[in-house]
Amino acid sequence: MTTVAAYAVPAAKAPLERTTIERREVGEFDVLIDIKFAGICHSDIHQAHEGWGEAIFPMVPGHEIAGIVSEVGSGVTKYQVGDRVGVGCLVDSCRECDNCKAGLEQHCTGGGVGTYNAIGKDGEPTYGGYSEKVVVDENFVVRIPDGLSLDVAAPLLCAGITTYSPLKQWGAGPGKKVAVIGLGGLGHMGVKIADALGAEVTVLSQSLRKKDDGLKLGADHYYATSDPKTFEELAGSFDLILSTVSAPLDFGAYLSLLRTGGALVNVGAPEEPIALNLFSLIGGNKTLAGSMIGGIAETQEMLDFCAEHGLGAEIELIDADQINEAYERVLNSDVRYRFVIDTATI
Amino acid sequence: MTTVAAYAVPAAKAPLERTTIERREVGEFDVLIDIKFAGICHSDIHQAHEGWGEAIFPMVPGHEIAGIVSEVGSGVTKYQVGDRVGVGCLVDSCRECDNCKAGLEQHCTGGGVGTYNAIGKDGEPTYGGYSEKVVVDENFVVRIPDGLSLDVAAPLLCAGITTYSPLKQWGAGPGKKVAVIGLGGLGHMGVKIADALGAEVTVLSQSLRKKDDGLKLGADHYYATSDPKTFEELAGSFDLILSTVSAPLDFGAYLSLLRTGGALVNVGAPEEPIALNLFSLIGGNKTLAGSMIGGIAETQEMLDFCAEHGLGAEIELIDADQINEAYERVLNSDVRYRFVIDTATI
Repeated sequence: MTTVAAYAVPAAKAPLERTTIERREVGEFDVLIDIKFAGICHSDIHQAHEGWGEAIFPMVPGHEIAGIVSEVGSGVTKYQVGDRVGVGCLVDSCRECDNCKAGLEQHCTGGGVGTYNAIGKDGEPTYGGYSEKVVVDENFVVRIPDGLSLDVAAPLLCAGITTYSPLKQWGAGPGKKVAVIGLGGLGHMGVKIADALGAEVTVLSQSLRKKDDGLKLGADHYYATSDPKTFEELAGSFDLILSTVSAPLDFGAYLSLLRTGGALVNVGAPEEPIALNLFSLIGGNKTLAGSMIGGIAETQEMLDFCAEHGLGAEIELIDADQINEAYERVLNSDVRYRFVIDTATI
Repeated sequence: MTTVAAYAVPAAKAPLERTTIERREVGEFDVLIDIKFAGICHSDIHQAHEGWGEAIFPMVPGHEIAGIVSEVGSGVTKYQVGDRVGVGCLVDSCRECDNCKAGLEQHCTGGGVGTYNAIGKDGEPTYGGYSEKVVVDENFVVRIPDGLSLDVAAPLLCAGITTYSPLKQWGAGPGKKVAVIGLGGLGHMGVKIADALGAEVTVLSQSLRKKDDGLKLGADHYYATSDPKTFEELAGSFDLILSTVSAPLDFGAYLSLLRTGGALVNVGAPEEPIALNLFSLIGGNKTLAGSMIGGIAETQEMLDFCAEHGLGAEIELIDADQINEAYERVLNSDVRYRFVIDTATI
């Protein structure tokens, strides 16, 4: 066991505090990672606040981890000391169910293990990236290509894969019109990736406040959804709409923006049920879908894609003692576009 | 103009009465069809009752039409006198919009014309299949292959294509587990077609009352949705679920029956909005979709498929003076599985 410094939430809704945690010994197939950067994802806050149900405390959040391998187990073949690596939302899965075999570890039916707020196969709670080091099975570690700085790569481990996976699966590419609802941590990566995939990209945001940013990030068009004319003008326009927001939307209105056969895919979601008139799907053979992060191989594919296209997250680098303030700012949508903790300051 | 006998709804919710209507002269590209059989679709009743909004009266319902060509216009190339033909839900469209060009006339954005309860390009109301004859542009007429009797073919023009189109589009076939919700006019064709496509078919019905029928129609399994164990036993089972019912369902429960990446496609729909928790789509990358009938070419493809596989509807043939009684029985789900009017009795 190794004692490392970390920032933890001691109890639901309590502020984060500096503490120490124990990391397991480096096992045969484990990699010890010196964490350099950890992104702050909105879902860290959901879980710290028990917004998604009962949670495990103390909680060390963080599933957007970038660092350097500092030790490897005797059986490790994929990584060596000095490698630049990342860890996302998962640190283990059953590896035997149909989903695991299909590379969909995020949908493991045999017992996937989250990077934090979960119980590992050793029966111990998992602790996330707001810490100095982490020990992870090499099969749940991905390589960060040399072209990507570790700080801007960290948020790709959740925000990147969460948007890349549905954009790829639902055919974003040349000749396709793609809209991204919301220009936050997820949305800004959705715009960058959809643009790099070759799609014509439109941002649908509540206001035009971030319009200049959106266009710089790769959007071709930018509309305010607070303006009813937006829905008239864009009716029947899009092949694909990616919703990255968790606010309750008028889904009938957004579905009306799809072309015949188009799809609206949700990666953000309101906690309460939405109201949906099914005629808004039947008329126009439309689709409402969901997507949750991505598998390990697809996460590697996403990192390689981002490196090739020079895509990192837009970040605001903070010291560890600013995490609580950053949480408040995330809740106020006051971040462009991802807080990343410099873990050297923990 | 030709005067023909018909059964019409004189005003919203009024019983049908025998009457006469005028059919237009046979134009250059028109086909005159001696109607032999007309199916009764639940949507006839919705429209006669103004359940889907304001309607045009008097209304001659009927969009499941099978008959024999008795005259053709000078420019007609596809049909000749004596041909066995069908007409479905559409008798015209703009033919210029992207959807029309893509063979998706049912989603015409330039002014599709329904077979009844619509205004044709000549400015006159359209009248449907509960009549002796109909004049239709040859491009909206399909051929009924010799292997299919006209009486059991009539319902294919709506119930057949409405289920065939989504089953094909969403990949029903060998190795796929497909569930059909509801064993009515649409559902029984869904079972037959999914079975003929090679899928493993399960009926999800409120009770086991029609289980023997379901298995004879081609289902491999039959479950009662009133039994909570059904949802436990079948969790995560299906690649595709086709919902043919218009009752409000617990969509979260049905989505839980899908495998990762599975789709629930609605062809029936409740008039009121449904409540949906988006997490039931995000967990498992699932899809909720809609589908509306099919295009003209696809309707022909469906008829050819049904003829090849010997698939007709299960019908109860009635005389025209039984239509009102048949409507009551449809509303009471007391039909196995489609009423078809012998139009010789009009």
